[in-house]
Amino acid sequence: MKLSKRIESMQFSPIRKLAPFAAEARKNGKKVYGLNIGQPDIETPREFFEAINNFDEKVLAYAGSQGIDDLLQSFINYYKGWNINFEKDELMITYGGSEAIMFSLMAICDVGDEIIIPEPFYTNYNGFSQCAGVNVVSFTTKAEEGFHLPKKEEITSKITDKTRAILVSNPGNPTGVVYTEEEIRLLADISKEYNLYLIADEVYREFVYDNLKYTSALYMEDVQDRVILIDSISKRYSACGARIGLVASKNKVLIHQILKLCQSRLCVPTIEQIAAANLINTPESYFKEVKNEYDKRRNILFDGLMKIDGVVCKKPTGAFYVMAKLPIDNADDFAKWMLTDFSYDDKTVMVAPAEGFYGTKGAGKSEVRLSYCIKSDELEDAMKVLKYGLEEYKKIENSRCEAASCKCL
Amino acid sequence: MKLSKRIESMQFSPIRKLAPFAAEARKNGKKVYGLNIGQPDIETPREFFEAINNFDEKVLAYAGSQGIDDLLQSFINYYKGWNINFEKDELMITYGGSEAIMFSLMAICDVGDEIIIPEPFYTNYNGFSQCAGVNVVSFTTKAEEGFHLPKKEEITSKITDKTRAILVSNPGNPTGVVYTEEEIRLLADISKEYNLYLIADEVYREFVYDNLKYTSALYMEDVQDRVILIDSISKRYSACGARIGLVASKNKVLIHQILKLCQSRLCVPTIEQIAAANLINTPESYFKEVKNEYDKRRNILFDGLMKIDGVVCKKPTGAFYVMAKLPIDNADDFAKWMLTDFSYDDKTVMVAPAEGFYGTKGAGKSEVRLSYCIKSDELEDAMKVLKYGLEEYKKIENSRCEAASCKCL
Ligand SMILES: Cc1ncc(COP(=O)(O)O)c(C=O)c1O
Ligand SMILES: Cc1ncc(COP(=O)(O)O)c(C=O)c1O
Repeated sequence: MKLSKRIESMQFSPIRKLAPFAAEARKNGKKVYGLNIGQPDIETPREFFEAINNFDEKVLAYAGSQGIDDLLQSFINYYKGWNINFEKDELMITYGGSEAIMFSLMAICDVGDEIIIPEPFYTNYNGFSQCAGVNVVSFTTKAEEGFHLPKKEEITSKITDKTRAILVSNPGNPTGVVYTEEEIRLLADISKEYNLYLIADEVYREFVYDNLKYTSALYMEDVQDRVILIDSISKRYSACGARIGLVASKNKVLIHQILKLCQSRLCVPTIEQIAAANLINTPESYFKEVKNEYDKRRNILFDGLMKIDGVVCKKPTGAFYVMAKLPIDNADDFAKWMLTDFSYDDKTVMVAPAEGFYGTKGAGKSEVRLSYCIKSDELEDAMKVLKYGLEEYKKIENSRCEAASCKCL
Repeated sequence: MKLSKRIESMQFSPIRKLAPFAAEARKNGKKVYGLNIGQPDIETPREFFEAINNFDEKVLAYAGSQGIDDLLQSFINYYKGWNINFEKDELMITYGGSEAIMFSLMAICDVGDEIIIPEPFYTNYNGFSQCAGVNVVSFTTKAEEGFHLPKKEEITSKITDKTRAILVSNPGNPTGVVYTEEEIRLLADISKEYNLYLIADEVYREFVYDNLKYTSALYMEDVQDRVILIDSISKRYSACGARIGLVASKNKVLIHQILKLCQSRLCVPTIEQIAAANLINTPESYFKEVKNEYDKRRNILFDGLMKIDGVVCKKPTGAFYVMAKLPIDNADDFAKWMLTDFSYDDKTVMVAPAEGFYGTKGAGKSEVRLSYCIKSDELEDAMKVLKYGLEEYKKIENSRCEAASCKCL
């Protein structure tokens, strides 16, 4: 039976594809430090579980398609804390940030339209675009520059008459970059000059270190009707399994149109919405503690990387990821080898090869993404194991090259 | 700012569009009997809430993209009771039947492809198709024939080289039809002869009355690789707000491809999956009671309709809907008038005008869908109120026509 070209062109998750090798390694008694995924190990606030455990309706009915009032109101209150004023008809609750992205693309792009994204980018931007029939056009940001934006011309050179939006994740997954006010201003200017939407994926908003000032795209007052905000409780409250997110914009016409998409899938889980609404009661101290914890781990991870010869990487300032260029040719092969062939003291490390984060073919081949979602002491150990692994892998690579009198020598 | 043609071409829910008038009526002290929506009032099994209330993980993590093992296994067990044997790699858990439909279309259709649906049909089939860039081609089934399938030629005449699938809801929303074994056989034959998929939306499988034998599309052994099953716990367990559904097929290649779509949106809510898995422990008596209750209401509703002059409608045998042709020209206007202008004893009835359920322009103008999701005694009263309403509306219509010396007289 024939399948659609659309689905055939999609890729399986490049992050999840090493999972069978990790399972095999664990089965063989190896401890595998998982630095490959963005699944926080931090506890979800108990305010969430309280609402879950206390739920006592008799009929689990559909909620309204926009989302329940309490949750909408709790988001409105949350944004006030960031000096962002939303009204109720500027928000739609979605199945995580994921659906918010999908709905944004559906609402502003027709088949064959283009969106511009700095690479490396969150791989699922590809999947959503393919579903919506939208072409991703990427411009490259570099490890050497801490993955900050390139010059304006490099961005605008990608714009065609089919371009509908610029999509950025800030703080960045997979890079950990936090854009400066100037960078956000630049994106706003471009969107104005070329009549584009600016889709701002700010799901990591809470995780900005070094006392940096965070600039939301919504702070650019002159382009508020162009900014589409993607948000989620997944990372903020370590509540990934709740699947509660939001798409928001001061452009009420756009949001009203997105209601059509919300109505077609009826609603987002009722109980999860009630529990998510209760998260507004999470004490400030929770965020402080969580941020301190991630910050500590960031230092451990970065220091660990700096102890490895030949690694190129600037210290990231946001989210909980680091993209590092390793002194190897094929990170895909390395990541697999770490699981199948290597162990140190019966331990190994699982990393995410970066190729899947790039739109440009062949780019990112020697890069990996590391997340810091495991405890500090484990992370410390993991970085040692990674260092040993890399050294051994390079030795083997070199001897292979010598045997083959390889040109690279 | 420009919106996509895709979203502009979509419609707001025709069922929900009368909601503001109902709200206004209620504000003015009217009791509004809601026969417009398919939101069961039946209690969700306590097995579901037990799992919710007892959830005690500390971190609410992403689940796997396919769904959690317990839930997959519980669906496998459930289908065994229907003599359907599924293996784990033939199922994907989705956000309700809604996402299952969407994913099916994405996986088998490219932009510009067509699917064939008997009208009147579940309106959201339109929304999903528009999102996927797929054109809905409908053939008509009639109130006079209890909305059973027409002759083979009427169906096959709609097939072009762009047709990828036939999509049917069985039991039917909005019609309440239950297809006979011969009808399902016919659909299977057509799908074979014309190399099509057969998307079988069987979310109302449990609700079949008069001791009729239910025929799942999966019983047609020779086309099992063509059948895509859409399922959901929403109606079966009165758990609409859980948003748990499933897409399944003996065509493992197809299901494996759909995993790409599942991975792109990460997962379905973890807690709801755990609770849904526990529903397998719902006692048989629950289903019997629920079915008896709906059956009783079906009789009340149908008898009520038969007491109204000029109504055309065969007694439906499934789901919890009736489609009735009323002796009026404009059901849309009537439905609104019932909310804004009419009351009997401070009560009125909200119905769903049927036009939105048709693909053919202008079809269904004098039809309405009525659901029986309210208690028997209320339903009894509602049918009286509806009768009075219809009589008064016709009087007003007639006098309007007389005043205008209208041709219709
Ligand atoms: C940048 C970014 N956006 C959106 C998402 C989607 O997350 P969710 O659907 O859980 O809200 C993720 C998840 O990893 C992400 O990293
Ligand atoms: C025929 C049919 N299919 C699918 C659905 C989708 O339901 P859910 O997404 O709640 O499973 C409905 C809901 O009313 C329906 O009537």
